[in-house]
Amino acid sequence: MSLQPWKILQSRYLVKDRWLTLRADKCETAKGQTIDPFYILEKNDWAHVVGFDADDRILIVRQYRHGARDICAEIPCGVIDDEDATPLDAIKRELLEETGCVADHFESLGSVYANPARQTNRVHSFLATNVKLVAEQQLDEMEEIEFEFLDIETVMDLIDSGEFSQSLHISSVFLALRRRGLLDRAYHGNRNPF
Amino acid sequence: MSLQPWKILQSRYLVKDRWLTLRADKCETAKGQTIDPFYILEKNDWAHVVGFDADDRILIVRQYRHGARDICAEIPCGVIDDEDATPLDAIKRELLEETGCVADHFESLGSVYANPARQTNRVHSFLATNVKLVAEQQLDEMEEIEFEFLDIETVMDLIDSGEFSQSLHISSVFLALRRRGLLDRAYHGNRNPF
Repeated sequence: MSLQPWKILQSRYLVKDRWLTLRADKCETAKGQTIDPFYILEKNDWAHVVGFDADDRILIVRQYRHGARDICAEIPCGVIDDEDATPLDAIKRELLEETGCVADHFESLGSVYANPARQTNRVHSFLATNVKLVAEQQLDEMEEIEFEFLDIETVMDLIDSGEFSQSLHISSVFLALRRRGLLDRAYHGNRNPF
Repeated sequence: MSLQPWKILQSRYLVKDRWLTLRADKCETAKGQTIDPFYILEKNDWAHVVGFDADDRILIVRQYRHGARDICAEIPCGVIDDEDATPLDAIKRELLEETGCVADHFESLGSVYANPARQTNRVHSFLATNVKLVAEQQLDEMEEIEFEFLDIETVMDLIDSGEFSQSLHISSVFLALRRRGLLDRAYHGNRNPF
């Protein structure tokens, strides 16, 4: 493979606050082309969880997402804070805060890039089983989150209708169904089989 | 459902050039909380394609991604330009430019949000069949892209190893296998079945 990374000749920060870190790089490609500016968002890693209850229903959260200006159905997710020792600690915390749920078993589904072209961060994906409600939500002042357990077929309906439309989370739903041997149930609603 | 969108009280642009549009909104939540700033990236929609050749192998591209500082295996993708009449036109153009390939048949796998929390754009996902090489690549000066057709099992290996690590694209690979009735082949390499 002949592909080579770019060199960073110079970096400057355009925004650096609690909410966003935007960097502009001056780069040189392996072929010697100069690219300036190439914008990069430095971000903390994220974590999310595909949580199944004892009946194999998936825990879905809904919240307003201002980028899309839409109410989105998703899976529980959040930013890994500096005080989280591991991605697993982060997602256990987010699950409890957003939904008041805990789980008997967690396992990693791997980590991928959120957007490798412009963002530095990875997304750590988890599968949880025997998820159950044990507490009240503990939301930040600006958070408003609704949640419910939905069977796999209903989640596929939400994906097909566009209501569950967070791409990063669809990927993990399929990886979780694969890990659990439940991909046959993903065929529900497949409108145009070859 | 009680969830309500936020009101935008004021918007200002921090960066607005060919490569990036960064907006800071002053918002009011439905509960009356003020949020300022909430950063939004205004972006054109994207398109990508899961392309199968006549032997059901998937067309994979590799390129350097500067956000991740990594060489990433992905599917052909690109920004929908103002001159593209439709998302389908855009992905046909990208497929030809990045790989020199055309396809007999395209169909939509739907569209989702790239990151509904902070980005405005959608990602339009396509399935293509009978993809074949007909021309040379036509790359931009700064682009360097390698491509090859890989069987479904090898693509699953790349996902498991982290080499194919673009979350938005993993989602579409699964949606394409679902549409084509090939999800059983996604079990390849599943290391920990329940």
